[in-house]
Amino acid sequence: MDFGLTDEQDLLLQSLDELLERECSESYIAALDLNHEQPVSFRKAMNEAGFGSLGFPEEFGGTPCDAMTLVLLAERVARQGLNNGYGLELLQATDIIEFGSPEQQREVLGQLATGEVPFALGFTEPGAGSDTSAMSTRAVHHDGMVTFTGTKTLITSALVSKNLLLMAKDPEVANPREAISMYLVPMDSPGITTNRLDKILWHISDSSEIFLDEVTLPESCLVGVKGAGFKQLMRNFELERLVIAANCLGQAQCAFDDAATYAGQRVQFGQPIGSFQLIQLKLTDMAIKLENMRNFVYRTAWMLDQGMPLRSQGALCKRYSAMAAFEVADEAMQIFGGVGVTVGVRVSRLWLDLRGHRFGGGTDEIMVHIAGRQIVKEHQHTA
Amino acid sequence: MDFGLTDEQDLLLQSLDELLERECSESYIAALDLNHEQPVSFRKAMNEAGFGSLGFPEEFGGTPCDAMTLVLLAERVARQGLNNGYGLELLQATDIIEFGSPEQQREVLGQLATGEVPFALGFTEPGAGSDTSAMSTRAVHHDGMVTFTGTKTLITSALVSKNLLLMAKDPEVANPREAISMYLVPMDSPGITTNRLDKILWHISDSSEIFLDEVTLPESCLVGVKGAGFKQLMRNFELERLVIAANCLGQAQCAFDDAATYAGQRVQFGQPIGSFQLIQLKLTDMAIKLENMRNFVYRTAWMLDQGMPLRSQGALCKRYSAMAAFEVADEAMQIFGGVGVTVGVRVSRLWLDLRGHRFGGGTDEIMVHIAGRQIVKEHQHTA
Amino acid sequence: MDFGLTDEQDLLLQSLDELLERECSESYIAALDLNHEQPVSFRKAMNEAGFGSLGFPEEFGGTPCDAMTLVLLAERVARQGLNNGYGLELLQATDIIEFGSPEQQREVLGQLATGEVPFALGFTEPGAGSDTSAMSTRAVHHDGMVTFTGTKTLITSALVSKNLLLMAKDPEVANPREAISMYLVPMDSPGITTNRLDKILWHISDSSEIFLDEVTLPESCLVGVKGAGFKQLMRNFELERLVIAANCLGQAQCAFDDAATYAGQRVQFGQPIGSFQLIQLKLTDMAIKLENMRNFVYRTAWMLDQGMPLRSQGALCKRYSAMAAFEVADEAMQIFGGVGVTVGVRVSRLWLDLRGHRFGGGTDEIMVHIAGRQIVKEHQHTA
Amino acid sequence: MDFGLTDEQDLLLQSLDELLERECSESYIAALDLNHEQPVSFRKAMNEAGFGSLGFPEEFGGTPCDAMTLVLLAERVARQGLNNGYGLELLQATDIIEFGSPEQQREVLGQLATGEVPFALGFTEPGAGSDTSAMSTRAVHHDGMVTFTGTKTLITSALVSKNLLLMAKDPEVANPREAISMYLVPMDSPGITTNRLDKILWHISDSSEIFLDEVTLPESCLVGVKGAGFKQLMRNFELERLVIAANCLGQAQCAFDDAATYAGQRVQFGQPIGSFQLIQLKLTDMAIKLENMRNFVYRTAWMLDQGMPLRSQGALCKRYSAMAAFEVADEAMQIFGGVGVTVGVRVSRLWLDLRGHRFGGGTDEIMVHIAGRQIVKEHQHTA
Repeated sequence: MDFGLTDEQDLLLQSLDELLERECSESYIAALDLNHEQPVSFRKAMNEAGFGSLGFPEEFGGTPCDAMTLVLLAERVARQGLNNGYGLELLQATDIIEFGSPEQQREVLGQLATGEVPFALGFTEPGAGSDTSAMSTRAVHHDGMVTFTGTKTLITSALVSKNLLLMAKDPEVANPREAISMYLVPMDSPGITTNRLDKILWHISDSSEIFLDEVTLPESCLVGVKGAGFKQLMRNFELERLVIAANCLGQAQCAFDDAATYAGQRVQFGQPIGSFQLIQLKLTDMAIKLENMRNFVYRTAWMLDQGMPLRSQGALCKRYSAMAAFEVADEAMQIFGGVGVTVGVRVSRLWLDLRGHRFGGGTDEIMVHIAGRQIVKEHQHTA
Repeated sequence: MDFGLTDEQDLLLQSLDELLERECSESYIAALDLNHEQPVSFRKAMNEAGFGSLGFPEEFGGTPCDAMTLVLLAERVARQGLNNGYGLELLQATDIIEFGSPEQQREVLGQLATGEVPFALGFTEPGAGSDTSAMSTRAVHHDGMVTFTGTKTLITSALVSKNLLLMAKDPEVANPREAISMYLVPMDSPGITTNRLDKILWHISDSSEIFLDEVTLPESCLVGVKGAGFKQLMRNFELERLVIAANCLGQAQCAFDDAATYAGQRVQFGQPIGSFQLIQLKLTDMAIKLENMRNFVYRTAWMLDQGMPLRSQGALCKRYSAMAAFEVADEAMQIFGGVGVTVGVRVSRLWLDLRGHRFGGGTDEIMVHIAGRQIVKEHQHTA
Repeated sequence: MDFGLTDEQDLLLQSLDELLERECSESYIAALDLNHEQPVSFRKAMNEAGFGSLGFPEEFGGTPCDAMTLVLLAERVARQGLNNGYGLELLQATDIIEFGSPEQQREVLGQLATGEVPFALGFTEPGAGSDTSAMSTRAVHHDGMVTFTGTKTLITSALVSKNLLLMAKDPEVANPREAISMYLVPMDSPGITTNRLDKILWHISDSSEIFLDEVTLPESCLVGVKGAGFKQLMRNFELERLVIAANCLGQAQCAFDDAATYAGQRVQFGQPIGSFQLIQLKLTDMAIKLENMRNFVYRTAWMLDQGMPLRSQGALCKRYSAMAAFEVADEAMQIFGGVGVTVGVRVSRLWLDLRGHRFGGGTDEIMVHIAGRQIVKEHQHTA
Repeated sequence: MDFGLTDEQDLLLQSLDELLERECSESYIAALDLNHEQPVSFRKAMNEAGFGSLGFPEEFGGTPCDAMTLVLLAERVARQGLNNGYGLELLQATDIIEFGSPEQQREVLGQLATGEVPFALGFTEPGAGSDTSAMSTRAVHHDGMVTFTGTKTLITSALVSKNLLLMAKDPEVANPREAISMYLVPMDSPGITTNRLDKILWHISDSSEIFLDEVTLPESCLVGVKGAGFKQLMRNFELERLVIAANCLGQAQCAFDDAATYAGQRVQFGQPIGSFQLIQLKLTDMAIKLENMRNFVYRTAWMLDQGMPLRSQGALCKRYSAMAAFEVADEAMQIFGGVGVTVGVRVSRLWLDLRGHRFGGGTDEIMVHIAGRQIVKEHQHTA
């Protein structure tokens, strides 16, 4: 076994460090958060430095990149305190690169290059989250056109995206797994209206309801194969969970470092509070969780890179990381005491943003649903 | 033993129910939260209905009231979803009624009657929280005047209060317990400036830093006995912890009811999510915590009313209630999934506001400091 | 509300204290545990002092007694460190008093009076625990006789009891709830064999498998009404859970007191370990759990005495008490360090015995099954 | 990074598998446990197969071996369900190989070869556990002799060992760190008496008090340098913690596998209990803990092999592994229900034995003491 980084990874992280220092200061992030804005200039800088196209095929101007490296970068960006989509944008682009038409590829990659969000993912509905079979948005194909009707909700970044990667169902196909197709739909299409949903967290990405009222477009908006939408989407689920876990890890590390540093400085009863066992206990268990998250994320990335079947691994990794990261942030905030909930202290934002990952990308509970059955099944074979 | 309410308590709660329905709707509370405003009209209505003067001595127009009844009312108001100060205002008034001069009493009680916050409590400093001995704000008495210099922080409601109940130290007295006095200081006194601290929670009460730069006032601003400030303040600490615990209980119950109702309505995989064991487990453990909080709060109130020494009881009650209430709210929010963090859903506000009680009124950890030593000491006597 | 004891309860507990000091010393309990013996002499003394017949109808020589008093006594006996059946024997007797024939009553009450276990309850089967419908032991009635065939397991006290209160099923009745009857079967009946199951805990009560191979007896061994066996058994389930919870509370208090006393005596690094925050934290959270258990048990007893419907209350009380009591014992043992797992230290036995209550009387998980559905259902009515 | 095994490690584990199947069956282990015997024949077989001398220097007939391989083997033996000392014996031997005289080396290595315990470690005292400065056993050197007086307690394997590796203090040296020396003392020396301490767990290794009453031996019993005893002992502490953690991991995996298999077989309410979410939740979180333990142990071993400073790493690893392993075993036992505490079911033994590691090798709390200060210190440098 070897837990060390390659020289290449070291160099890449060093170069990322410099970029983060220059383009992603805490005051920059705090301002984004306050103004509910996306980190457009930072993403643009990332793209210019080549980080944005890591993992893209070479014919699209990208550089091949294994999951391990991707995860290291995502962790590092998050460690800056940014609840970022690094890695997630890659996933989105990948969908289009793999399944999209040349025109769709051009559109999406062009936007990525300028730091814009390439598209919002239109998946969740008021009555259908992890339960895909309940999806009710309809796509009716007719005369080379397709007409969409339905409601999506909790859609991230819809208000700043030119397009919606819409999941919709052919009402004439019975099997829900074969009924869903993927479409790239311009957000300014007639019949689309949106309703911003204010949130208590994740301020740098907007959330909305999207109403599709007889939105009609040429069939060329289809992405990939008709009826294969769910399968296409699934392709990236393992990597998505992993990137979210890396994001959780990085932000939790950021909160931990802030709290441990504060514990050495803040004096109460004549000593730094870090000399009290109650604080040391917190720091100790936070350090343990960080070690666990880090190892979990790296080993899962390694398994992906080895082409090993993940089975329950990705779900376990996401469940643990999202829960542990929030626990770390919660204790970090507690170490700060009343100061910890003021806006000027970074830990308050980390605490909020990390809470969101306990449902975003699949709830803690859905991870049990995925992993639990798998574990029992595997042990039936061994019994 | 008897766990039932008296007929009087039943009637009082019924009458409070009606008032809450009329004067404290969810939309009223949501608007206060959004606009960062205090519930002035609701407090005025409470006072007019006589709830505001419960517990005041009769000579001040009040009605005697035991701790149990007070706690029942505080719980009920909080159950409406309001992170309220009911009960806490009484505590503040009590300080002045007991120790203040007739003039100070007139001033404070008059403001209370109109629903205003009578004063902000100026206790915490950047370098002194629960560690009183580190307090550095100085009060120098000279020629019938007193001059204050120092900085207070995380002061609640200072921006809407006419006065500050200031704790300050005579620099010439060595013993910190005997050096601190209590003063009622107009917020518009020359030399006072404030700096609003934005918070991620408790939006209906502002928090600020207060800078006192050679603020000079007549000595008549002293409240009670010189050098007895800390002792005077302590008087109410047990009741304060209890009222905070009741507030936690009520808000947690509100979050639980919302979540349990939602679990019966929200359908996933073809059934209400309340039929899934993962959700039932959450609801079960939430119900257990509510039962525990309720019993803890009531028994502590009973002990106070019996004149029994509380010893560690109040600290244990505050620690448990603040932690358990937040856990209940956290699970409630999780049951709502992504919807739970949108601003339109009450549970998101309850979750935020409850988090604040894990440091407000003394951190979870200080409660261990208070109770732990006491427990060991008591068992030394039995050994 | 009133959390105080009545004078009668005070007197009763005082008299129990004296009896415990005389008849149930730690060395007596330790010897029972070592030798895997039942506390026969202690139970006999309890009966002679009148505690054994508390709760029995007067016509059977008993004294009426409310659930609250019963629970106080059960807690007090357990606080002595005895994993006792006090209260549970009463429940057993009650079954026979209520449903048994005069002959059965005579038999059972006679044994109770001498401190013997009146009978073992033959309910659980290898394939049927909380899932009654899977019960497979058959009772075939024919010519005034009844023949039993089947296997019971984990049957408590079968090896020291003269009789088995057997639950068996009429194979010709389809509805499982109407198929089960209750029988009082002498353990020395031909066709009964047993197999002792050694356990790592609960040494003072034996556990066995019981094999019934065509055991044939006169029909007069039926207890109560044919087909009503399950309903008859259910009658006492709420009180049984409550008595178990009281037993958990008492033993946990015993472990806590031992640990808190030890923490004040044991010196490490030059101070009593009770002065370290890590130990104070444990003691604080143990004290909180004891307060919660105590209140939960008392309020549930009060509800029973008021004739209020318990709904989920009994299940919640049992779940919390069994889990919290074990947690308290686990921390108590940890405070003792390596000494804590030696046989000479009482806490090791309490730790083991308390673990058993997390499945005895219904597992932690079955309590969720009972309470969870109830909670969702109640909130559907309020929605 | 690379999480795979080398071919050599694979082969070694395969060969260990075969040996375990042949020489360490569950019935063999169960009998040892029942009879409170050490696994002498198994250790002999391990030695004959060459596993016993892995890690020894070549001049002592050993084969060099990195920490990673050692940890893999320790984990694998423990996964068989044996609460073994594999790896720990190596550590003991290492002390003697490194610091002992040729005669001492001959004595100890000879015993190791036959599967015997080479010696008991005489460190802990009634008044001195992790607090070495409180050690009171005295070693007085005089005329080429040394005389020992004092009491040791909780000494493992003293009753089956020929020697005691005794830590004792020169009463004339003030600094406790320089006062302690290490001695190899025959257990049958005049003046040594022992008192067996019965335990509720760890039945395959005895624990005792050892009384040294003016035990006088030639000074040649000194091991290593006079006054360097503590430093010599410390040498192996990091590896010891790691081997304990690997042992915890292996046994927890064993308990998990048993429980997951049982969950697929045990039917209740008409389905395998593994189909219930409450059981799936347990299995999911157990799987997460196993993943974490495994990664933690492997990465710590890798750090050791790299010669990296462990700082808090070893303490964190030991704390997490001991606590998580017991939690896994506790849930495993709960999945078995009442059957889980019977002696015939392996999980009951695993549950007991794993509990012991939460104090053996340093308590959970001492790990906080070690790691907590280190964490604060490291962040002071970064601040």
